[in-house]
Amino acid sequence: MEFIERYDGSGLLIEVDKIIYEFKGVQHIQIFETKSFGKMLVLDGKIQLTERDEAFYHEMLVHPAMLTHENPEKVLVIGGGDGGAVREVLKHDPKEVVMVEIDENVVNACKRYIGIDRGALNDKRVKITFEDGLEFVRKCKDHFDVIIVDGTDPNPISQALISKEFYRDCARICDYFVTQSQSPFAQADYFKAIYENAIFKNKVVYLGFVPTYPHGLWSYLLCSNEKDILLDLEVIRKRFEERGIETIYYTPEVHVSAFALPKWVKDLIY
Amino acid sequence: MEFIERYDGSGLLIEVDKIIYEFKGVQHIQIFETKSFGKMLVLDGKIQLTERDEAFYHEMLVHPAMLTHENPEKVLVIGGGDGGAVREVLKHDPKEVVMVEIDENVVNACKRYIGIDRGALNDKRVKITFEDGLEFVRKCKDHFDVIIVDGTDPNPISQALISKEFYRDCARICDYFVTQSQSPFAQADYFKAIYENAIFKNKVVYLGFVPTYPHGLWSYLLCSNEKDILLDLEVIRKRFEERGIETIYYTPEVHVSAFALPKWVKDLIY
Repeated sequence: MEFIERYDGSGLLIEVDKIIYEFKGVQHIQIFETKSFGKMLVLDGKIQLTERDEAFYHEMLVHPAMLTHENPEKVLVIGGGDGGAVREVLKHDPKEVVMVEIDENVVNACKRYIGIDRGALNDKRVKITFEDGLEFVRKCKDHFDVIIVDGTDPNPISQALISKEFYRDCARICDYFVTQSQSPFAQADYFKAIYENAIFKNKVVYLGFVPTYPHGLWSYLLCSNEKDILLDLEVIRKRFEERGIETIYYTPEVHVSAFALPKWVKDLIY
Repeated sequence: MEFIERYDGSGLLIEVDKIIYEFKGVQHIQIFETKSFGKMLVLDGKIQLTERDEAFYHEMLVHPAMLTHENPEKVLVIGGGDGGAVREVLKHDPKEVVMVEIDENVVNACKRYIGIDRGALNDKRVKITFEDGLEFVRKCKDHFDVIIVDGTDPNPISQALISKEFYRDCARICDYFVTQSQSPFAQADYFKAIYENAIFKNKVVYLGFVPTYPHGLWSYLLCSNEKDILLDLEVIRKRFEERGIETIYYTPEVHVSAFALPKWVKDLIY
């Protein structure tokens, strides 16, 4: 059996042994056992994670922003229902993590059938609220050291999470902000829209390899309204070591290097 | 119509409008017109290049080695029948380029039906010889400033190009050597074998995005027996500017950053 996710005139084929779970609610949730990628989560036909490479994505989403902050105690994760982002956030020993996820079914299915959160979603420092991220930040009067947006591809549900209105509200309530920002190769229009709509004073794009995302090339956008975005290898390395973080993909050298963009990517946005 | 290249439990699907050329000789050559990647060259079922992303590969194969040498006048390209590597080499204005390609049919088909060499294969400084690269370097009494190996995936024809014997002969006749070294994600065994067999005193792996290669993640190995492998951004940038090189993907910053390997890649070899 095969699962195929199609992009622009191309697609990724994953050989599948069986379907473990399927549910059509807010989103169409599918969980597969694959031949060589472990378990795989698919939402509305798009691969969200496989056990084999999810750490490549979650580590690169979380650690650059968390290590750019000198002491991130209070963190907001928007989306990220599989728990992978929260798992990485907890490696920095924060005091409080708020996760805002619109689809409770995703959280329950991932905890039960995949388990990449490795208990993180049951950690006593983690508060999960099931609501629209746009609504949450609009009415939010709290302040967060870091906000992490782990959303799906833009669609009727997640489209609001790439709007100027959403970014303006986030900028109001945090020191540092990071979002995944799609594939500059396969989804250049979304990549550019995210960069343009993110109306922070400082914003920088970085890249990472995620083999099961479109063509393996994925982007992230790290922002701050008030603070400079640190790219000092020595400082980042010191924080990484002091916090005792263990990773599969991320290193402080990869972190700093990820901001060197191929010319055609720079030409899309700068 | 669709073309699918399969890896380990996965594959890349490319939508195809028509087949332009097909020939079964030393290798099974196919050239397709694709829906969104331009023309595509396939050898023995494996994608060698598409017009849309071939520069990502050829620039990252050629420029790091060529810019590591302060004045590369004489260059040997082994493989590379499509002419993309020679095209990039000529941007450095060398005095002489020797291309050794085992399959004359590939050169003729690429010149006629694809043309990414943009005339490079007819340049008067370029000498093309059709023979086995292993044999060529074994009997070679010349010296080259840079050797560039642009081979296909290891198979009965190209297997010899990842042997210790081949690397020993190359080390004898050049200052700097670079080879593509497969995907550390989809082809970890070949990636490791190339690194281990390349018996140069100095050798370093670097990575780049190539969307139509397995999972978009590709590796290269830059070596020297006699010389240090320079990674000084200022020197590289100066040479890049002095030589007036224009690129789509490569920048001196990308060059230096490409050597920062994800932890799981380092763990495979170091």
